[in-house]
Amino acid sequence: MVKVAVVEGDGIGHEVIPVARDLLEAVRPDLEFFDVEVGYGRWERTGSACDEETIADLRSADAILFGAITTPPDPEYRSVLVQIRKALDLYANVRPIRGEGVDVVIVRENTEGLYSGIEWTEPVRACTLRVVSRQGSERIARYACTLAKSRRHLTVGNKANVLKSDCLFVDICTAEAVRAGVPCRTSYIDALCLDLLMHPDRYDVIVTTNMFGDILSDAAAYLVGGLGMLPSANIGDRHALFEPVHGSAPDIAGRNIANPVAAIRSAAMLLAHLGDPASAAAMEAAVGRVLSAGIRTPDLGGDAGTREFGAAVLREV
Amino acid sequence: MVKVAVVEGDGIGHEVIPVARDLLEAVRPDLEFFDVEVGYGRWERTGSACDEETIADLRSADAILFGAITTPPDPEYRSVLVQIRKALDLYANVRPIRGEGVDVVIVRENTEGLYSGIEWTEPVRACTLRVVSRQGSERIARYACTLAKSRRHLTVGNKANVLKSDCLFVDICTAEAVRAGVPCRTSYIDALCLDLLMHPDRYDVIVTTNMFGDILSDAAAYLVGGLGMLPSANIGDRHALFEPVHGSAPDIAGRNIANPVAAIRSAAMLLAHLGDPASAAAMEAAVGRVLSAGIRTPDLGGDAGTREFGAAVLREV
Ligand SMILES: CC(C)[C@H](C(=O)O)[C@@H](O)C(=O)O
Ligand SMILES: CC(C)[C@H](C(=O)O)[C@@H](O)C(=O)O
Repeated sequence: MVKVAVVEGDGIGHEVIPVARDLLEAVRPDLEFFDVEVGYGRWERTGSACDEETIADLRSADAILFGAITTPPDPEYRSVLVQIRKALDLYANVRPIRGEGVDVVIVRENTEGLYSGIEWTEPVRACTLRVVSRQGSERIARYACTLAKSRRHLTVGNKANVLKSDCLFVDICTAEAVRAGVPCRTSYIDALCLDLLMHPDRYDVIVTTNMFGDILSDAAAYLVGGLGMLPSANIGDRHALFEPVHGSAPDIAGRNIANPVAAIRSAAMLLAHLGDPASAAAMEAAVGRVLSAGIRTPDLGGDAGTREFGAAVLREV
Repeated sequence: MVKVAVVEGDGIGHEVIPVARDLLEAVRPDLEFFDVEVGYGRWERTGSACDEETIADLRSADAILFGAITTPPDPEYRSVLVQIRKALDLYANVRPIRGEGVDVVIVRENTEGLYSGIEWTEPVRACTLRVVSRQGSERIARYACTLAKSRRHLTVGNKANVLKSDCLFVDICTAEAVRAGVPCRTSYIDALCLDLLMHPDRYDVIVTTNMFGDILSDAAAYLVGGLGMLPSANIGDRHALFEPVHGSAPDIAGRNIANPVAAIRSAAMLLAHLGDPASAAAMEAAVGRVLSAGIRTPDLGGDAGTREFGAAVLREV
């Protein structure tokens, strides 16, 4: 029995994840789902947003469908999502950006860089250590090159003109690309952000470090109508977590207006990861048909509700 | 006598800076210009891109007009521009983004953050220290609040949900905004990048740390036709350097196709800084009229050359 952990999380997570889950249940009645509570709501109720037992539950799943969580306003708290990515060693954050004239996959290193968690406060300053490890760079480079090999080419987003730590990252990625026979360029992250917006057709697979990938993927969302559209996969050697790139959006939560496309596409990535590319493609195609029929949530200029959009996809699938 | 140091630098710096300088000479015949050589060309010839004597020359100027420089491909080399910003303690990097429906000023901290220069390599990893100091944050917060006070409001771009060093930055900026009576919001840098693209009208003055400001300003260039349009000022308590946001662009250098608008606007910012807002406004207005007349360089879809565009502005001014 294939087991899928479902974390709705907070805010619009409670709206978009049920839609995605219903679709998964429709196309794959054989999957077994179990709920895991994580996030701000839980923190408010119990004082803990996530604990060791929760992590163990997540580890027991074959895949995790994840909504979005609000970071508790507690200075002692580090982002729970970041904790989970590390605990499960989900080192590749894969973010496909697809739309009119755009077909790019951002592969973001997901465990180190500025997210090292190595931070301290001194009387006159606060410091965060940006860590680029050989091993961490090698595995993300391999992941990106394997993907690029089945596609077209690779761009290495970096800031090696300023950061010595990025010289290492660039060296490892370009060496891996040569080894894999993948055409490869490097690009400074600032210039890349702009050029990706102006000329998306120049890009295929982009590999970059953690924080640069975080920013680049949000900027790239501009190309396809905003964050409501972007799914992501967080992949490790033993675990995998699928989540929309958007956050919990407390400002629009509870109003049935959130766009569930990112969550549905994340569910499709989950199916592909479980070895069922046919169902994944069917779900993607159903979303495409519903959008083409002009059924859209308000962020895309439509007036469909979250549930109504989901129901339309369910009919198409 | 007011003295202006001119650094053409490399690549298209040799094309756009002479245009800007001619205009400065036309509107302010009383300024005294002197050339300073810095950059890759100099490094190729002499083995040094910039030295103590050069820095002393730059310090002797009342303002510096700066082109763009190519970073020598020498792993021992740290970016010369970054060195100059630090040596002259140019702590505020001010980047106005103006165009149809866009009037935003990005105020980027310019001396610390990921540009601390505190970096080391260990056998299995390379590290860069991100430093957010109390004093560094306070002075940039004051600068941004003074500017926002004469405008509308302030947004603090940060990643405090992940970086403890940004908790300090946010605390200091919001406290300073309260003190100055400036309406202030905070926004995570990834979401901010996207929202600035989607809703530029929601933003006025944005203050952020060094690397985030670097990336955000390039992304924002998308709103106004690309990097060819964006000027910047690097301001310290004793020195000031004005430069286009774009780089030396070796790929298009020497072809008389570079857009000189960013350099001309940087020269206008220089005039305003020297206490001559009237000449600055006249130069800005002349650029506006030339663009409105449909005279544009190829990056904006036109066929005017760099020199021809400059000559047209000279006629208008
Ligand atoms: C919520 C936050 C910790 C997270 C990140 O920074 O990775 C988010 O922005 C993302 O992109 O998944
Ligand atoms: C050339 C580079 C060192 C510089 C920076 O990173 O600050 C540039 O990108 C800029 O924005 O001025």
